[in-house]
Amino acid sequence: MTADPRFSINQMTVKQLDLPELVKTCLELGVQHVGTWREPVQAYGVEAAAGLLRDAGLAVSTHCRGGFLTAIDAAGRKAAIDDNKRAVDEAVTLGTDVLVLVSGGLPAGSYDLHGARERIADALAELGPYAAEHGVRLAIEPLHPMYAADRCVVSTLGQALDLAERFPAQQVGVCVDTYHVWWDDQAPAQIARAGAQGRIATFQLADWTTPLPEGVLNGRGQIGDGSIDLRQWRRYVEDAGYSGPIEVELFNDGLWARDGREVLAETAERFTRHA
Amino acid sequence: MTADPRFSINQMTVKQLDLPELVKTCLELGVQHVGTWREPVQAYGVEAAAGLLRDAGLAVSTHCRGGFLTAIDAAGRKAAIDDNKRAVDEAVTLGTDVLVLVSGGLPAGSYDLHGARERIADALAELGPYAAEHGVRLAIEPLHPMYAADRCVVSTLGQALDLAERFPAQQVGVCVDTYHVWWDDQAPAQIARAGAQGRIATFQLADWTTPLPEGVLNGRGQIGDGSIDLRQWRRYVEDAGYSGPIEVELFNDGLWARDGREVLAETAERFTRHA
Repeated sequence: MTADPRFSINQMTVKQLDLPELVKTCLELGVQHVGTWREPVQAYGVEAAAGLLRDAGLAVSTHCRGGFLTAIDAAGRKAAIDDNKRAVDEAVTLGTDVLVLVSGGLPAGSYDLHGARERIADALAELGPYAAEHGVRLAIEPLHPMYAADRCVVSTLGQALDLAERFPAQQVGVCVDTYHVWWDDQAPAQIARAGAQGRIATFQLADWTTPLPEGVLNGRGQIGDGSIDLRQWRRYVEDAGYSGPIEVELFNDGLWARDGREVLAETAERFTRHA
Repeated sequence: MTADPRFSINQMTVKQLDLPELVKTCLELGVQHVGTWREPVQAYGVEAAAGLLRDAGLAVSTHCRGGFLTAIDAAGRKAAIDDNKRAVDEAVTLGTDVLVLVSGGLPAGSYDLHGARERIADALAELGPYAAEHGVRLAIEPLHPMYAADRCVVSTLGQALDLAERFPAQQVGVCVDTYHVWWDDQAPAQIARAGAQGRIATFQLADWTTPLPEGVLNGRGQIGDGSIDLRQWRRYVEDAGYSGPIEVELFNDGLWARDGREVLAETAERFTRHA
């Protein structure tokens, strides 16, 4: 089997593979796109990672992830801006034009979701032009509402677009991830809204399986194992004009415990069968 | 300290107390309202429970919970209708006019959230008149989107009202529970919509604490321990015209492991301080 030409593997899905192993396995399976992750890329060396991927002919669909823009104190805000500029620079080096943003949760002791969302907008006003000048677009990723307190106060595509719309579409788009939006009956209309504005920067897949694990971070289901009609969501996104790579991004302790090459082959096959 | 006259304790919050202990502790603390739960009430005997509560002068704010209306097969649908009629009868016996409904999740193997929501509407068309004839109102409770697959396909107040609006307000209202809606920037407007239609049947409180436990069922935070601005949500609901009891409903393994009388006293105190 050769992987679907639209299929992209996010590096975190098979984090047990080091970068050379990931590249080798992609070549064996005919996988053409990789979504990179900041920490392992930094550990390998950004230039070296970029060279390895480029030499193998692999395209980088997105770089994940910047964000965490909800700090209240000036030092925390400046540190976040600086770090996100570095993430943009990394994206440039890696040759991708999409930096995915996870916006950040509520600061300790704060109840103010609205204020946190406004601070994200303030940060985007500085980061958006910086990114666009470097040929990179920021993709606001709404995370499932179960992460609203501790990871991401942007919980719906509607909220993400309300933020993105304050900026030019070449600066700020959105990331549509099935895991985060599948429950939302408003999401199909919001995908159409995003498409009409040219703001669908990337499309990611994970399936929804239960029971959720403690901490609810590492239970994203393998494609086809859960409750999400992935083909239907793909139709929504493609009907809205998206034709780029489709990235499978799974955080899953069970998958991480297995042989990474086997998991990557399985994921590519599941993509072909279910998405 | 005497408990706030608006405070109601949901029986599940202190499920380690049997019904006589619960009643005794309520009287000691000056708690005036109890939200009952079907299984322990059935185990005690519905008539006996009603007598015990009535003799103590305790009002029943709601009976929890009916619902689970998403079965596809005829036998499963009939069983659910019959069981919900029994729940209405129990509510009548207990002297409350509110039966809270948890709608049910996706049937095994189904991806069809919309179809599941339509089957709930079909069931309400039969249950709504039955309930109203008995002086009981059905309260659709949207559950947090993290329960959409396995417990409740109604994930937002907007969705709950879209369902409720198909029926007269004396048949079908909604339950506003802070734990389920706090993340939703559309919820304040939906509370106003519910209030304008006279459909706020009950208001429940729980706080949002992280990390969530495995299965995400039994991690509802004690009032004041989490990320929710409970006073603000109370204002939204009261501004929309709700003036009834405010029920604290916590599923929390940590609280269940403690002395139930102490937990009830703490909960009443937290209500006074934070809500």
